[in-house]
Amino acid sequence: MKHLLTTTDLAINEINEILTDAQHFIEGGTWNPDKKIFIANLFFENSTRTKCSFEVAERRLGLDIIPFEVSTSSVSKGETLYDTVKTLEAIGVNAVVIRHSEDRYFDELEGTTNSSIINAGDGCGHHPTQSLLDLLTIKQEFGRFEGLKIAIVGDIRHSRVARSNAEALTRLGAKVVFSGPEEWFDKDMLKNGEYEHIDRAVKSADVVMLLRIQHERHGENSEHSADQYHQAFGLTEQREKTMKKDSIIMHPAPVNRGVEIADSLVECDRSRIFKQMQNGVFIRMAVLKRIFKHTEGSGKDVNTHQKWPIAY
Amino acid sequence: MKHLLTTTDLAINEINEILTDAQHFIEGGTWNPDKKIFIANLFFENSTRTKCSFEVAERRLGLDIIPFEVSTSSVSKGETLYDTVKTLEAIGVNAVVIRHSEDRYFDELEGTTNSSIINAGDGCGHHPTQSLLDLLTIKQEFGRFEGLKIAIVGDIRHSRVARSNAEALTRLGAKVVFSGPEEWFDKDMLKNGEYEHIDRAVKSADVVMLLRIQHERHGENSEHSADQYHQAFGLTEQREKTMKKDSIIMHPAPVNRGVEIADSLVECDRSRIFKQMQNGVFIRMAVLKRIFKHTEGSGKDVNTHQKWPIAY
Amino acid sequence: MKHLLTTTDLAINEINEILTDAQHFIEGGTWNPDKKIFIANLFFENSTRTKCSFEVAERRLGLDIIPFEVSTSSVSKGETLYDTVKTLEAIGVNAVVIRHSEDRYFDELEGTTNSSIINAGDGCGHHPTQSLLDLLTIKQEFGRFEGLKIAIVGDIRHSRVARSNAEALTRLGAKVVFSGPEEWFDKDMLKNGEYEHIDRAVKSADVVMLLRIQHERHGENSEHSADQYHQAFGLTEQREKTMKKDSIIMHPAPVNRGVEIADSLVECDRSRIFKQMQNGVFIRMAVLKRIFKHTEGSGKDVNTHQKWPIAY
Repeated sequence: MKHLLTTTDLAINEINEILTDAQHFIEGGTWNPDKKIFIANLFFENSTRTKCSFEVAERRLGLDIIPFEVSTSSVSKGETLYDTVKTLEAIGVNAVVIRHSEDRYFDELEGTTNSSIINAGDGCGHHPTQSLLDLLTIKQEFGRFEGLKIAIVGDIRHSRVARSNAEALTRLGAKVVFSGPEEWFDKDMLKNGEYEHIDRAVKSADVVMLLRIQHERHGENSEHSADQYHQAFGLTEQREKTMKKDSIIMHPAPVNRGVEIADSLVECDRSRIFKQMQNGVFIRMAVLKRIFKHTEGSGKDVNTHQKWPIAY
Repeated sequence: MKHLLTTTDLAINEINEILTDAQHFIEGGTWNPDKKIFIANLFFENSTRTKCSFEVAERRLGLDIIPFEVSTSSVSKGETLYDTVKTLEAIGVNAVVIRHSEDRYFDELEGTTNSSIINAGDGCGHHPTQSLLDLLTIKQEFGRFEGLKIAIVGDIRHSRVARSNAEALTRLGAKVVFSGPEEWFDKDMLKNGEYEHIDRAVKSADVVMLLRIQHERHGENSEHSADQYHQAFGLTEQREKTMKKDSIIMHPAPVNRGVEIADSLVECDRSRIFKQMQNGVFIRMAVLKRIFKHTEGSGKDVNTHQKWPIAY
Repeated sequence: MKHLLTTTDLAINEINEILTDAQHFIEGGTWNPDKKIFIANLFFENSTRTKCSFEVAERRLGLDIIPFEVSTSSVSKGETLYDTVKTLEAIGVNAVVIRHSEDRYFDELEGTTNSSIINAGDGCGHHPTQSLLDLLTIKQEFGRFEGLKIAIVGDIRHSRVARSNAEALTRLGAKVVFSGPEEWFDKDMLKNGEYEHIDRAVKSADVVMLLRIQHERHGENSEHSADQYHQAFGLTEQREKTMKKDSIIMHPAPVNRGVEIADSLVECDRSRIFKQMQNGVFIRMAVLKRIFKHTEGSGKDVNTHQKWPIAY
């Protein structure tokens, strides 16, 4: 695997292999690349979870991390993403983890740079390592995907998680339904699952997967106050009581407590929210292993054929 | 020791053991934890000294540091301190060093998170590693605390150093007096020492401990201009001449040169200002050792009892 | 070598030794200091290339890097550069790499601090590691400097690269000419080379060394629009066609594509722009090696002559 850009690019067997590798790391497995690997984490949008999770995964595999802060880089002098990545590549960086506000920012990089690109979130598009850690959390719980019903609830249109997950879960044999404010739906989202009322969805799903209200992507005059949203589309204490016995709650976090989910439920027995984060580290180790297992010697040496011979 | 939150929490014998351990590191002693330890430094207020000092101490002990910048974290999406710490914990971080503008920010974390918390300064409250490095600097100089007179001079009310130090020094047998602008005093500060005029205090003290004027905590219309303050309450060249033969000058820094202390005195023979900073690294090593010596396996594994068996 | 401040300070034989050492690293050579070395990178101006390049070089040599972000340091509380460097030194940092907007910021540090100082760019003054990597790129190409003609084109007055390079190249036996808008020239720049029209310079030079238009140093009402500049003084596709067969193009980057150079030429066969970046890592390794090879034990121990004996 050269890059990880979208979950859609991954075949079913690749997904299963990554999940198995991640579980292997959870159970104490280790792996290290056989040469020095430099990696940089380029986060053009704020993040705690994803950035720190990659940092821990990279350190566990013994990679060398080159710190990169967007605000103090030449990006603030107007340097493009392409030139930034080419620069890091020239300096010796073998792979870049990128989060960027633009959908499919990676299209201009694929094929034009030598570095491996790991997508840590593009605009409203994809977030493949989040999808994979969600899949791992579900697999750990139920041992399978076939026959499960997953309710994805909330801000579907702005969610890269909704998009990636619905597609992958459908391919893996699960049934996906969507819930939340209807004005936040795209018609084309519904090809991977139908709309269901929140009360019915919560009651019948094996997994209630809540999405974060992305205040930073909505305008100031949001149609829904926090409390109105919670009553209309949130996982209230009342709704949680109607869930099936072994059903679980998931959320990619950061959680708006009291909005998408009642404060008291964030750490309840059904919640897998912190377990998702824990799984994230191992999924990222599995993805990085898959990428660096196959490099034979990344970074073409441009210092060849020069006229200056050196003798020692 | 699970956490280090305030100096008040430390018994006399604990303080002495930490000082002895720090001195041992100064004299070339080493110690490393017997497993991989991940630590994150969460500085919600600016810092050079304390943050870099922890970074050096952590590296000397071979800990793995996960970089965390408040400005580019999910804190800027409104995530609470509690959720941030729980997130880092889920990701595998064993301990967090925190500086925060809120007094006793740690009360909501203690007992609810598994991570060790090391307080690197809370509001106007405590700053235990600064206190400990001050104590070490005094002990190195005089070999004892009993019978010493320590004059703490300046912005007592806003100083976490004044509070922590006065209490600990009194317990250790020293006599503490306070000096500086009277309107900056709390009545309850004076339970650990009485007020004395600056001229008398400087003349009779073994240690003149100056505090930084915290411009960022005072409003714009401060009652004292820099020069007025220097003449009225600062360590001027004239006042320094009245100090006892072996008395020393301390300051937690950053120093406002020409305000709390004459520019020419910052690096004079009596000054232990840079020695305090040097001692800080070794105090922090001693504190971290004390914390990680006792972890049997921090971070409960939440990935147990799952239905998905894995076979290799 | 204690510091690296300007290229002018380096004798010809020192320059040649650094180039040879860098080339040795390119060909797989390694070197590590025989003790733990702490280094901090203090970038008071934005940078991707130089900062990341130092980071990679430092890691390749096994140095311990203490992260330092200006925006979250005590610099924002008004701490001076001198006090910041003294603080880092007290904490155990052996060397600091500094980029600063003030010309010759290092004059107040040299001789007053123990740390080695590596200048990564001062105001409009010097940028010695950039000069050295430029020299290495030319040496690799032609095997010599004598008899070469180098055209330095663009914003000469604001360029620390122009200044450093013109002086060094002249000493090494090359002929330097300058081109670009005449109002951007200092009379005293011309002591190391004469002015030549852009068309003649491009046609006759062995190396066309373009400089970046520093939008951040010019006011808003720049005399030249991007397109006007490109036509008048840029390396257009037309001008490139007039270059000599083996001539090369250099640029310190970040490039303003379509301004200093046509977009299509940035990665053309003549371009050594990304090779310059790659060489930068090895030049910095060579410089750091030269500095740490000679430290016998940096950082005076200020913890001597204390009264408190410790016994284990």
